[in-house]
Amino acid sequence: MPGNTIGQSLVLTTYGESHGEQIGGILDGMPSGIEVDIAAVQNALDRRRPGQSHLTTDRNEVDQVRFHSGVFKGKTTGTPIAFSILNKDHQSKDYADLDKVYRPSHADYVYDAKYGHRDYRGGGRSSARETACRVVGGALAGLLMPEVQVRAWTSSVGPIEIKTNWQHLDLTQIEAHPTRCPDPQAAGEMEAYIEHVREEKDSTGGTVTAVITGVPVGLGEPVFDKLQADLAKAMLSINAVKGFEIGSGFSAAAMLGSQHNDEIGKNFQTKTNNAGGIVGGLSNGAPIELKVAFKPVATIGKAQETVNSQGEKVVLAAKGRHDPCVVPRAVPIVEAMIKLVLADHYLRNIKYTR
Amino acid sequence: MPGNTIGQSLVLTTYGESHGEQIGGILDGMPSGIEVDIAAVQNALDRRRPGQSHLTTDRNEVDQVRFHSGVFKGKTTGTPIAFSILNKDHQSKDYADLDKVYRPSHADYVYDAKYGHRDYRGGGRSSARETACRVVGGALAGLLMPEVQVRAWTSSVGPIEIKTNWQHLDLTQIEAHPTRCPDPQAAGEMEAYIEHVREEKDSTGGTVTAVITGVPVGLGEPVFDKLQADLAKAMLSINAVKGFEIGSGFSAAAMLGSQHNDEIGKNFQTKTNNAGGIVGGLSNGAPIELKVAFKPVATIGKAQETVNSQGEKVVLAAKGRHDPCVVPRAVPIVEAMIKLVLADHYLRNIKYTR
Amino acid sequence: MPGNTIGQSLVLTTYGESHGEQIGGILDGMPSGIEVDIAAVQNALDRRRPGQSHLTTDRNEVDQVRFHSGVFKGKTTGTPIAFSILNKDHQSKDYADLDKVYRPSHADYVYDAKYGHRDYRGGGRSSARETACRVVGGALAGLLMPEVQVRAWTSSVGPIEIKTNWQHLDLTQIEAHPTRCPDPQAAGEMEAYIEHVREEKDSTGGTVTAVITGVPVGLGEPVFDKLQADLAKAMLSINAVKGFEIGSGFSAAAMLGSQHNDEIGKNFQTKTNNAGGIVGGLSNGAPIELKVAFKPVATIGKAQETVNSQGEKVVLAAKGRHDPCVVPRAVPIVEAMIKLVLADHYLRNIKYTR
Amino acid sequence: MPGNTIGQSLVLTTYGESHGEQIGGILDGMPSGIEVDIAAVQNALDRRRPGQSHLTTDRNEVDQVRFHSGVFKGKTTGTPIAFSILNKDHQSKDYADLDKVYRPSHADYVYDAKYGHRDYRGGGRSSARETACRVVGGALAGLLMPEVQVRAWTSSVGPIEIKTNWQHLDLTQIEAHPTRCPDPQAAGEMEAYIEHVREEKDSTGGTVTAVITGVPVGLGEPVFDKLQADLAKAMLSINAVKGFEIGSGFSAAAMLGSQHNDEIGKNFQTKTNNAGGIVGGLSNGAPIELKVAFKPVATIGKAQETVNSQGEKVVLAAKGRHDPCVVPRAVPIVEAMIKLVLADHYLRNIKYTR
Repeated sequence: MPGNTIGQSLVLTTYGESHGEQIGGILDGMPSGIEVDIAAVQNALDRRRPGQSHLTTDRNEVDQVRFHSGVFKGKTTGTPIAFSILNKDHQSKDYADLDKVYRPSHADYVYDAKYGHRDYRGGGRSSARETACRVVGGALAGLLMPEVQVRAWTSSVGPIEIKTNWQHLDLTQIEAHPTRCPDPQAAGEMEAYIEHVREEKDSTGGTVTAVITGVPVGLGEPVFDKLQADLAKAMLSINAVKGFEIGSGFSAAAMLGSQHNDEIGKNFQTKTNNAGGIVGGLSNGAPIELKVAFKPVATIGKAQETVNSQGEKVVLAAKGRHDPCVVPRAVPIVEAMIKLVLADHYLRNIKYTR
Repeated sequence: MPGNTIGQSLVLTTYGESHGEQIGGILDGMPSGIEVDIAAVQNALDRRRPGQSHLTTDRNEVDQVRFHSGVFKGKTTGTPIAFSILNKDHQSKDYADLDKVYRPSHADYVYDAKYGHRDYRGGGRSSARETACRVVGGALAGLLMPEVQVRAWTSSVGPIEIKTNWQHLDLTQIEAHPTRCPDPQAAGEMEAYIEHVREEKDSTGGTVTAVITGVPVGLGEPVFDKLQADLAKAMLSINAVKGFEIGSGFSAAAMLGSQHNDEIGKNFQTKTNNAGGIVGGLSNGAPIELKVAFKPVATIGKAQETVNSQGEKVVLAAKGRHDPCVVPRAVPIVEAMIKLVLADHYLRNIKYTR
Repeated sequence: MPGNTIGQSLVLTTYGESHGEQIGGILDGMPSGIEVDIAAVQNALDRRRPGQSHLTTDRNEVDQVRFHSGVFKGKTTGTPIAFSILNKDHQSKDYADLDKVYRPSHADYVYDAKYGHRDYRGGGRSSARETACRVVGGALAGLLMPEVQVRAWTSSVGPIEIKTNWQHLDLTQIEAHPTRCPDPQAAGEMEAYIEHVREEKDSTGGTVTAVITGVPVGLGEPVFDKLQADLAKAMLSINAVKGFEIGSGFSAAAMLGSQHNDEIGKNFQTKTNNAGGIVGGLSNGAPIELKVAFKPVATIGKAQETVNSQGEKVVLAAKGRHDPCVVPRAVPIVEAMIKLVLADHYLRNIKYTR
Repeated sequence: MPGNTIGQSLVLTTYGESHGEQIGGILDGMPSGIEVDIAAVQNALDRRRPGQSHLTTDRNEVDQVRFHSGVFKGKTTGTPIAFSILNKDHQSKDYADLDKVYRPSHADYVYDAKYGHRDYRGGGRSSARETACRVVGGALAGLLMPEVQVRAWTSSVGPIEIKTNWQHLDLTQIEAHPTRCPDPQAAGEMEAYIEHVREEKDSTGGTVTAVITGVPVGLGEPVFDKLQADLAKAMLSINAVKGFEIGSGFSAAAMLGSQHNDEIGKNFQTKTNNAGGIVGGLSNGAPIELKVAFKPVATIGKAQETVNSQGEKVVLAAKGRHDPCVVPRAVPIVEAMIKLVLADHYLRNIKYTR
């Protein structure tokens, strides 16, 4: 199976290059009879779209999703749901002289090495533009599990991070700020930092934290398809992601068992949640908590040394329009991938819940 | 597809419960004509087996692998390779009174919730004993790519960590110490810490770092099956893993693009390796560097509060034999999962390298 | 995995309803660097399209394929190839009063039973219109294996059949007649029979025979994915197909081993070909010969008794535009499915031919 | 995915060579809590085993199945069920001089061409001995759907066939005769014919017919994974199968639509069953009727011309022990493959029946 498909029971396949005519996908496996809330899907896309605030790239894509199949009289029919999004505001001439240059920390060289030739315009298939299709797929997947609430937010940008435990944050405020940081003070500092970085023609990394509540007990499979394993894969499949933590994450490595173990209490609920809502690969009903690290955007305006396809040294300072920090726009992508994974396991689990 | 299978072109399926008669698996997809170095496979198993040193559990399994098919006159035939390992030294009576107790941070409760009943002896299918089969599969997978070298080691135990960059470690010394830490001073401190923790009837977490060299350029698929995504899934599928980093990992979140970008130089090699050997989801020929966090073992001798299957409060102090720190034994498991992922992508990539 | 996907290494996923806005698909897994002969793809579609001759339905779809991704400068890039075909000449009003009627030998009732509701316009997803996407996918797949020649033809219509062995037919004449029967006399009789059946407001079945030459030795997998097994699945997945034969087919049941065995001679070539080009599930280099039976089209103008969704008896005489015999239009569909199966196994086999 | 696996939700992977130490498999995906009727599984195996009657090969394998995992206290646990069967009565010396001879209509040559070398003893992986594992898997699968009754029988041997419609046969008599033909007169003639063929050192083909009742409405997927398509694949994956028919089969090709259509009557049941119980790829509740053609066994005692691996002409007269007609022993294999396909679709369908 080539690499453009994710899921087993709910399956998303995406296609399209950054500067092609369109991008899109097919979501197969949705049960029938589910009301398709097109506004909710479009809203998710709007949260990802470029040009949404002064903190993002100037590329201004309206990113309106069009559905082509699988929905009849407002409901899913159980047949594949095809959708597409037009590429409108791409400016391929920004990339015309890049066909022979291998940009640092981009996929140019490895694509040429693997495929022999590539659609170099705007990064082609390796561009994060592809993630718009994941957002559509994820929003549809979310409709399957109305009882499950997936919330993600910007938890750090560069050196600035939220210090408060998520239970003490007002998560209704995530969308209130262009950084998607629900801590007002940190949000302000992040905004200033991103603007500073942009002025320096540089970029910055950051982290996204997500909490999922309302998850039924038992989602996941015991061995290779542990729920945290499929979540980790989904997260690491997002462009620019370099790290993943579930529950206690890396801090677990320095802990004692007596500190880390989550004692079980009333109604089989754990008193603490170092597990992050997953035990033995299966959801245990506690909130699923995860954190994802994004590297700084590779495209920067500063001059960098690199080589062209002949192996000759060249100096490059990017002219294309790009985000100084992808993290605010990555929040809906993280949510979408979580929803795809959970909905897939939700359907895979049905045979055990008859 | 149920969750006991990993890989697409090279496919491992495992079976077996901790205290059943045997565990085993089928590795399907190995090309024909590969010499099967049984000693190498057994050696990998010996590095994982319980009872190998004073730092591990007292359960003493010889763990001798038996092959049942797919090998003829010492070479693979291209047909499925079945193998099994007998469970000999299990002491199910240690678990006899556990059938109704839900141990903290174990899968007992979620298994019952999902499946209705479970093989509770020694953790059944949720036990890390299952990973012995991964070690066999990974050792076989490694035979496919003799040019690829996978090395993993214990990089931290509890609060004690190696501070030296891996390039300055003597990786030939990994096996010289029961901790599998190649830094002699840290190794000694880790050993003392593990012994201390064991005396306290407690357990500790730690990290494993891995470096893979000799990887051909172009392994991986661009979108969902990025090489780092499949590695992350493989790592998070290992019992007790809570975090994963590729290359710069979480530190990338605080970096600037101008710091993080890996400039490309002579022979298309990068001057730095923040990417960790993978760009755009494809290997770029630089060493693949990753790090994995393990939580402390959940089974401890200290008394803990929990509930039984009736939801009644009980106090539990484990009597079974368990490791105070799994990290040294996890090293060969990490290596095995890396080999399975790389070999799978190695075979998937062949159609592009004709 | 839901049912709208076929193939493992070369994967086609299709979508779309008969009277939706469009149908289409994604072909994933094509290696890079293959020249895309758009005219060849369109030509295959033209051979399938409705309204192509006086023997087919009056629905007149131009069926022009549009490509959306995966092709750059005329060559495949190794990324997914998305394509679509607009539905233009659908007349859903023909079906408006069918939303509550369960047509005999159609999928109306079973769709309602399985999915709860359905897109009843023109048969929705169950319509053979979906096969246009297979023709596109198959034509692209064929570009992978220029040395392989796939030829199919109408070998019978109702009681009229070609009696000549295929080696004595002039297969260059298949397209010379609207029946796609290369035997001129049988073709004429078939044409008259189809016209007669149409006048009777009835329909007729028939058979398609296919011969594939130039197949490399060794395509196929030994056990479940035998080449003939995947071909059988592909054929039986075509609407209206009721039977499949490889090589000697059902006649083998009455034969003796000494008659049926294909002795091996010079250059390891068999002297006879009762095997139909496949032995032990693997191609042996001889022509692959197969035959497929199509039932008569279910939609007929004659009055038939049936029930509506309330279970009440109704009498139905179809008004929609339909073919009196699908077999001539099925020829390119059979070819397409063969190409998809062979190209998939062609790619799966590469790891053995390094 | 290599070719030794079948199914998506219920997945069987098999391993083993004819003259290796053992054969076996893993059945993954069985829901938990199903009582495992070991006697029923063993009974199915006994019906397939060699040496069961004077009509079969003299190879006398007791074929006792051993289970290694996935069953606890007599019930499935939802984890993989591993099983094995020892090879006891193999006489590899019968094959010692066959390592360099390519037997007519056997896989020897194509295996060598594909894999470079092969386990030639007893046909290795290409031997029908592998189907014993399918019988185990199918018997387990059948336990999932107690309401579904799968019955298969020998409907023809060479020129002798049952002429009676199956509704008029006494299907309780299938096992009463070593031919597994429920028509006593035909059974007697078949027996005599098989004995005659054996005396002639020859072999004969035949057909198996199967009828499945009690199938819920809606099993199957609309497009590529139509129920008849997956059945066809399963049947053609059995060694020696050359043809497949569902319902009317090849006779449909000569029929008119007005003859072939199954009018729908009371309770949405069809009055006739030309469809063979499947419409639009989905089961419609009527009996599923299918027929499978088996070629004569390739191994015969008569002298045949062939070549060795050097391409030199040799004359071969088989000495190994083989069946003069596989059809009676194929009956339980056909049943097993049907059960595997139906149970897989049964589980895949659950998400639509919540």
